[in-house]
Amino acid sequence: MEYIDSLQKLIAEFTKLPSVGRKTAQRFAYSVLNMSDEDVRRFADALIDAKKNIGFCSLCGNYTDKEICSICSERDRSVICVVAFPRDINAIEKSKQFKGVYHVLKGTISPLDGIGPDNLRIKELLSRLDGVKEIIVATNPDVSGEATALYISKLVKPLGIKVTRLAHGIPIGGDIEYTDEVTLARALDDRKEI
Amino acid sequence: MEYIDSLQKLIAEFTKLPSVGRKTAQRFAYSVLNMSDEDVRRFADALIDAKKNIGFCSLCGNYTDKEICSICSERDRSVICVVAFPRDINAIEKSKQFKGVYHVLKGTISPLDGIGPDNLRIKELLSRLDGVKEIIVATNPDVSGEATALYISKLVKPLGIKVTRLAHGIPIGGDIEYTDEVTLARALDDRKEI
Repeated sequence: MEYIDSLQKLIAEFTKLPSVGRKTAQRFAYSVLNMSDEDVRRFADALIDAKKNIGFCSLCGNYTDKEICSICSERDRSVICVVAFPRDINAIEKSKQFKGVYHVLKGTISPLDGIGPDNLRIKELLSRLDGVKEIIVATNPDVSGEATALYISKLVKPLGIKVTRLAHGIPIGGDIEYTDEVTLARALDDRKEI
Repeated sequence: MEYIDSLQKLIAEFTKLPSVGRKTAQRFAYSVLNMSDEDVRRFADALIDAKKNIGFCSLCGNYTDKEICSICSERDRSVICVVAFPRDINAIEKSKQFKGVYHVLKGTISPLDGIGPDNLRIKELLSRLDGVKEIIVATNPDVSGEATALYISKLVKPLGIKVTRLAHGIPIGGDIEYTDEVTLARALDDRKEI
């Protein structure tokens, strides 16, 4: 294969994106070569601009291009939904059900990966509990997510603040026949009177 | 979801890459925000540099950063392998079997998509036949690829140049049980004495 230095460099850059291997990176690079000069310039500018303009909200830790993000500055601060990553906020916001504010931990407790409570934004959470009535812990239902939820609950409950967790059960549109046994057991435990 | 202008723009740019949908583009954008300033700058530069430095070889039409690509300038020009796209050259070069030069058509004849012989680099192929002994047509084994192969063969054969096509059959490492019937029929037709 002909070795073109700037093509190899571009392919190497694309492989840094999540779950992009060499072949996909090659396809991306070829598609860039097929774009117009102007389109490539716009792509490069979008990269630089996003990195330059976007930082973290000083309250919740979500991405924002302001000092305090629009969610923190406009919504009910008495309910805080705690998430592991900014992408989780996206998912919850799409449900249009939550009217409070968020708090991004930037991870969950995972001793095997060397992530303890001190590596997460837990201190920042404790410093904004004034006037808060409820903390909803929306970490993933796995070992690390549950451990984090428990840890936060132990810290916050003694302060007289309600701590809740997202409900687990059969997904809407899901099929009982194909639901795994752990989810079914949880759905039975948490059954609701109708 | 919080609307951040420069994030939306970056996501929109990523969706222009082949087979990247909105969700993947979002993941890519988030991963860019997680990169260092320097890494993002390098990514943007790689885009601009590749587009600026890479053009088409004036002989074969493959990507190159020179006037004539290294394959055309170094190898045996008496055998030309005709391919639809530059990416096909990559695949063939990896086999390390071919010692001649290439010719990129930039597509195959496909009347339904409005692509006729005049839209392809067929004139350019005819203009470089001086001293050529064989043309290997390496287009895909589909309707449009076969039509293109036939068209080229009809043009080139009368000039006394051998025209060949890549062999079809069971892929190496393939399993007869799971080979489709069309490939098997072709493999039977083209059977070789041992």
